[in-house]
Amino acid sequence: MAQLRIAIAQLNPTVGDLRGNTELIVNGVHDAAEAGAHVVVFSEMALTGYPVEDLALRETFAQASRAAVDQLAARLAKAGCGELLVCIGYLDFDKAGARNAAAMLYRGEVVARQFKHHLPNYGVFDEHRYFKAGQTLDIVRLHGVDIGMVICEDIWQDGGPIAALGEAGVDLVLAPNASPYEQAKDEQRVPLATRRAAEAVAPLVYCNQVGGQDDLVFDGDSFVVDAAGVVHARAPQFTEHLLVVDLDVATGDNTGTGSFAGLEVRRWLLSGTPLPAYEPQPDPPISEPLTDTAEVWSALVTGLRDYVHKNGFRSVIFGFSGGIDSAVTAAIAVDALGADAVYGVSMPSKYSSDHSQSDAAELARRLGCHFRVEPVADMVQAYVGQLDLVGLAEENVQARARGVLLMALSNQESHLVLATGNKTEIAVGYSTMYGDAVGAFAPIKDVFKTQVWELARWRNAEAEKRGETPPIPENSITKPPSAELRPDQLDTDSLPDYALLDNILDDYVEGDRGVADLLEAGFDAAVIDKVVRMVDIAEYKRRQYPPGTKITFKAFGRDRRLPITNRWREVH
Amino acid sequence: MAQLRIAIAQLNPTVGDLRGNTELIVNGVHDAAEAGAHVVVFSEMALTGYPVEDLALRETFAQASRAAVDQLAARLAKAGCGELLVCIGYLDFDKAGARNAAAMLYRGEVVARQFKHHLPNYGVFDEHRYFKAGQTLDIVRLHGVDIGMVICEDIWQDGGPIAALGEAGVDLVLAPNASPYEQAKDEQRVPLATRRAAEAVAPLVYCNQVGGQDDLVFDGDSFVVDAAGVVHARAPQFTEHLLVVDLDVATGDNTGTGSFAGLEVRRWLLSGTPLPAYEPQPDPPISEPLTDTAEVWSALVTGLRDYVHKNGFRSVIFGFSGGIDSAVTAAIAVDALGADAVYGVSMPSKYSSDHSQSDAAELARRLGCHFRVEPVADMVQAYVGQLDLVGLAEENVQARARGVLLMALSNQESHLVLATGNKTEIAVGYSTMYGDAVGAFAPIKDVFKTQVWELARWRNAEAEKRGETPPIPENSITKPPSAELRPDQLDTDSLPDYALLDNILDDYVEGDRGVADLLEAGFDAAVIDKVVRMVDIAEYKRRQYPPGTKITFKAFGRDRRLPITNRWREVH
Repeated sequence: MAQLRIAIAQLNPTVGDLRGNTELIVNGVHDAAEAGAHVVVFSEMALTGYPVEDLALRETFAQASRAAVDQLAARLAKAGCGELLVCIGYLDFDKAGARNAAAMLYRGEVVARQFKHHLPNYGVFDEHRYFKAGQTLDIVRLHGVDIGMVICEDIWQDGGPIAALGEAGVDLVLAPNASPYEQAKDEQRVPLATRRAAEAVAPLVYCNQVGGQDDLVFDGDSFVVDAAGVVHARAPQFTEHLLVVDLDVATGDNTGTGSFAGLEVRRWLLSGTPLPAYEPQPDPPISEPLTDTAEVWSALVTGLRDYVHKNGFRSVIFGFSGGIDSAVTAAIAVDALGADAVYGVSMPSKYSSDHSQSDAAELARRLGCHFRVEPVADMVQAYVGQLDLVGLAEENVQARARGVLLMALSNQESHLVLATGNKTEIAVGYSTMYGDAVGAFAPIKDVFKTQVWELARWRNAEAEKRGETPPIPENSITKPPSAELRPDQLDTDSLPDYALLDNILDDYVEGDRGVADLLEAGFDAAVIDKVVRMVDIAEYKRRQYPPGTKITFKAFGRDRRLPITNRWREVH
Repeated sequence: MAQLRIAIAQLNPTVGDLRGNTELIVNGVHDAAEAGAHVVVFSEMALTGYPVEDLALRETFAQASRAAVDQLAARLAKAGCGELLVCIGYLDFDKAGARNAAAMLYRGEVVARQFKHHLPNYGVFDEHRYFKAGQTLDIVRLHGVDIGMVICEDIWQDGGPIAALGEAGVDLVLAPNASPYEQAKDEQRVPLATRRAAEAVAPLVYCNQVGGQDDLVFDGDSFVVDAAGVVHARAPQFTEHLLVVDLDVATGDNTGTGSFAGLEVRRWLLSGTPLPAYEPQPDPPISEPLTDTAEVWSALVTGLRDYVHKNGFRSVIFGFSGGIDSAVTAAIAVDALGADAVYGVSMPSKYSSDHSQSDAAELARRLGCHFRVEPVADMVQAYVGQLDLVGLAEENVQARARGVLLMALSNQESHLVLATGNKTEIAVGYSTMYGDAVGAFAPIKDVFKTQVWELARWRNAEAEKRGETPPIPENSITKPPSAELRPDQLDTDSLPDYALLDNILDDYVEGDRGVADLLEAGFDAAVIDKVVRMVDIAEYKRRQYPPGTKITFKAFGRDRRLPITNRWREVH
């Protein structure tokens, strides 16, 4: 047995920002040192942010990343943190190619360096495009404890590093991660890590990135679990946090080097003697994971906030239609950026109902955000009159006049424009390109319509619990949805009931199921046909839709890559 | 020695269209049979089209593809083509996952089935996402000739199938390909295939797909080359073609089965006896590859034509600005779709010069396409007046008013809208989102500005050679480019000279070089800084830009995947 104080630095780096991320990390190490930690773990590629995408292929960037690790080691030692073992994810490269790497820094030097072995290449991941797989495992002995590393996917796949560590012998496993959020994923991580701890016969320290990066958001939720499944510490989700925990680590007589499970195990001795016994700190609180809906809300808030701030914007502008989508988007934006950074614009056309305008104004009043009314009648009339537009052309011009209006205000006042479309709409193409689809970011792009309502009710209930005004007007939640692009139009004129529609989409989009499966699931053949066809032919619209926070298993965008030109039609 | 008549069916399938592609293939087999061929080769995944992207993961689609191969074999036998050995690419799957497969059909059955071994996962390719690598090689003996298969990337990588065929012994190698066009790639293929033929010690039959698929275009250019580098036949580029050639194949005593170069070689006997001697047909003409500029023009014409037609459109509409980009786009569109399918719209604002309108009208006159003038003054005034727009906001509103106008005409008259931006503009973000960037397809998206001029001069010269009117007005070629969004504006107010700019972009975008390299190449530091920064911060615009035909090594889109949120800045 040996004592060791472990710190997990759950931080929010920015992709590409080597200088800024270095400062974040230095601060994290200082905090860990102040807390008396002996080891501090940062997330996967913490130095570069994750994912860097094609930056991984840019030699100048890889060189800068590698150099920054060496500089970091020297700087930490100079600052008196040299005795702290620092485990840090970064981008490395050698003659074989780029590497998703983790290094251990100690006494001013890189004492171990290891590359990710299992490279995910599914869903949102393209790691075979970027990285060569590592074939070595570095184990260091610090204060008599043998410490190994595995990187993210290395714990999601069988065999490889975990098996090798288990066979070669290790006392503690550090696992830097950048595991994007999706609903219910957090419930898989602890059981998975427990299994891997059992295979390695050692406690596992799981450190995950936090924060938003384009369409991904990372929830943190870092923890320490042992081989028996005991969670010793767990960090809160969606916030930067330094988690410090004292462990009594069972130390073994680990001497295995050479080939294990197809990998080459190497050992480095830093200090062989266990620390003199010390008084452990009280165990940190084990953070409760958020409820499902609270978790989604936090993901959306974090994703939006980081997109806006990391891209140098301070404020957002978008249409307040009086409907549920813009209302929920507005509540998220206010939670993310503050009411003073949110600019709502009501843009009535001649088909806009009175309630759409009064509900929009009421939303702004409840949120305390900026609000203005800019009718689009004159713009629309200029097109309709000159071009004699009728039907769909006339409907779309209203949406597009609004899009141009928002972009003009954005240019004039430097706000970032948000698109307020939801996943259901985007799936079936129920949106107007260059109209309501205008925006740099689409906060609820990956939220099905039925879940938009659920979020609205949840957020209002939370406000009530706290004694605050519920942000979303009841009428926006309860009224039947309408695009209001022609008289008395309702969404249900063109679409099945949203509950039914979302159920079909869940099977067809998330589950990638065929029509036979949908029929078997009991859906009506004509409805299936209609929905599947709408989804298939809307791909060209989705390609030009702004990015938005992924919360589901399969988000539109890099997660679901279908050709636009595609004559495959599910038949039955 | 044994005689064999080989047909290469260089066809233009449509992704997902199993029925339509089956008909194409059946016709190809019939034509080959009529020509007396003994073997006919189709391109990689000819049955499904290539690339199918995430359709590969859809079980119903993979099942349908596999079933279609069996049905095809039966149908061909019934139609009296059973004696012809048919090599066909398709999507297969088994419990390991989806497979990029090739099958040999003979006498109503699938007699050999093999999976691609080397899976490309760089550039535009994501095959590790989709396919499991094949580990077996099937060799059939037909008329005494041992015939093996390799699929596309299998000839681009060392080792694997070619090495195994060479070691195990084979007389003829069939190579179905779907190799996307890029400039100068055709010059690599014959030398590469020659090397592989030498390694396999057998002639290689290279069959490539032809036609456009979203942002890719395939140039065909199929050929037969032997181990000595002699090209026996070569098909024309960018057109469907059945190439039939008689070969005298050296037959060996090939009996190797089992493991070769890590792959499992299996042999199947169809007929052991060589054909009785027959009179070979005269050698087919060996098509000359197109000149560099003609090749690019054909790629752009083919890419546009197939995008429009395969997506069910008949006509296109876009702005005729009087400038070079819209002029070249118009000439491409007329070559692709015919003058009657092209609708030009001049949309003058108060800053438009007289020559922009007269050059646009002259372009339409020369092309004989549809043309109308729709001033945007009223639309622009509606925004500027109501919102008090000035500066950039006023400039952009002009571009966006035009975008909305084109979309309205598209909705009203069912044309597909084209965006006319070039690669230089898109690289530096010199375009207006939802303005000139509006469109379903962007034909010259991957053409640098200097090359746009080159194409214009080339196309005019071609017309003169043929005694036709040069399509592009001289004035559109020679006048200094201007966006005409404010008085006396010139592109050079905001951008370096295009020749210089394109040189820098060639290094920074195509070459992924760092600033140090650019300095070393002799560019001015201040200009480098400005250009690199413009490119970096325009990523969000590129994400919403329409797809367009890839002609360069690194096209924007799936070829260059950079994060939007990205604080990496090249420094020096």
